[in-house]
Amino acid sequence: MNEQGDTPTAGAPTAPLAPGTRRPGGRTARTRAAVRDAVLTGLVEHGYPGLTVEYVAEHAGIHKTTLYRRWGNIEGLVADALDLAGEDSWAPPDTGSLEGDLRALAHTTAESFAAPATAAAPTAFIAAAFQSRRAAEALNAFYAGRFARCETIVGRAVARHELDRRTDAGALVRAVVSPLFLRLFITREPVDGELADQCAAAALAAARAGVFGTATDPEGADAPAGPA
Amino acid sequence: MNEQGDTPTAGAPTAPLAPGTRRPGGRTARTRAAVRDAVLTGLVEHGYPGLTVEYVAEHAGIHKTTLYRRWGNIEGLVADALDLAGEDSWAPPDTGSLEGDLRALAHTTAESFAAPATAAAPTAFIAAAFQSRRAAEALNAFYAGRFARCETIVGRAVARHELDRRTDAGALVRAVVSPLFLRLFITREPVDGELADQCAAAALAAARAGVFGTATDPEGADAPAGPA
Repeated sequence: MNEQGDTPTAGAPTAPLAPGTRRPGGRTARTRAAVRDAVLTGLVEHGYPGLTVEYVAEHAGIHKTTLYRRWGNIEGLVADALDLAGEDSWAPPDTGSLEGDLRALAHTTAESFAAPATAAAPTAFIAAAFQSRRAAEALNAFYAGRFARCETIVGRAVARHELDRRTDAGALVRAVVSPLFLRLFITREPVDGELADQCAAAALAAARAGVFGTATDPEGADAPAGPA
Repeated sequence: MNEQGDTPTAGAPTAPLAPGTRRPGGRTARTRAAVRDAVLTGLVEHGYPGLTVEYVAEHAGIHKTTLYRRWGNIEGLVADALDLAGEDSWAPPDTGSLEGDLRALAHTTAESFAAPATAAAPTAFIAAAFQSRRAAEALNAFYAGRFARCETIVGRAVARHELDRRTDAGALVRAVVSPLFLRLFITREPVDGELADQCAAAALAAARAGVFGTATDPEGADAPAGPA
């Protein structure tokens, strides 16, 4: 029910590495989604320090005591909004080649954070993680899930004999987007499509050079450490 | 004139890519340094949203009206503390090889953010940049300065014929540290020396593969675009 439904209030539906831009469907999820939307709006408007349970109650149209009972406090509300953001069905790009997939991943990351509408909510989550341990843990879990999904890019490349099967997929996909996140949230420099291409090319060159190699073979076959 | 003087209150003196961990000497700088230290302490203790001019005045032992007159407001105080952090004499590692320099850069970055004492102040600055445009601009300037200094690593490598002279030094040095910053401040994952080695190796492999190549030769000699 309402699987695709409702206009997202916190951004467009294409923001793979940007928490908080999708909205789930289903009757039982409606309250949670309303709370999540109110949390996002509040985070974007006021930042974590200015977000209150009262604000969320008012904007979600849900009584404050319900929020306290179910989510405990403002940290619980923010953490659950992040958990919910990770429960979508997003899958990484599948272009038919490793290079194409990595470029698409870099481009979609750069684009989602370059547009104010899609960048506001994830940026607010990233900022909240500096101030709330629970938000930081939830952000860690969100990205662990996102990058785990991205590992399919590497799995397909191994199947196509584009990469050694001992490649550390998690390290590779993180390498692709790292220079974008550095510029967006640390050095505060612009990112664009040209940089996205460079990010993908750099990670690919490193992967081909064996930099992300692990000692263990995921299939247990021809690992250099031998059987035993 | 106390060039090396005074115990740093905000961290050890070896934190190249970590703003706010050094303290300048000199009589005329004493007030500014005291204010900077108070800003850092306040940021670490209360975060940007909890930092007040009153707090800085009390902890720096300087009258509030002086702070308002010279720095304007709390944003001005934070921005100046960051500007001051960038005015040290830090130089990137010089180990005699490109690989050694990049590894040393990655290791010192990972280490400075792994130790709570040296990580607190720079982390507070990075967090403040989410909430203050002036802090974001000052952080951008701080890192622009830091990475510009790091470009000497690439210059030396070109002189040793380890790298093509058309290598984009800024892109290369940012690539080295990006995966560390991603894990430290976005995905909230641990970083260690092994990861630092991988970061350096990945950036080096990409550089050797020509990924950071630019169309223009800094010496104006054999640029593919030709003269004029």
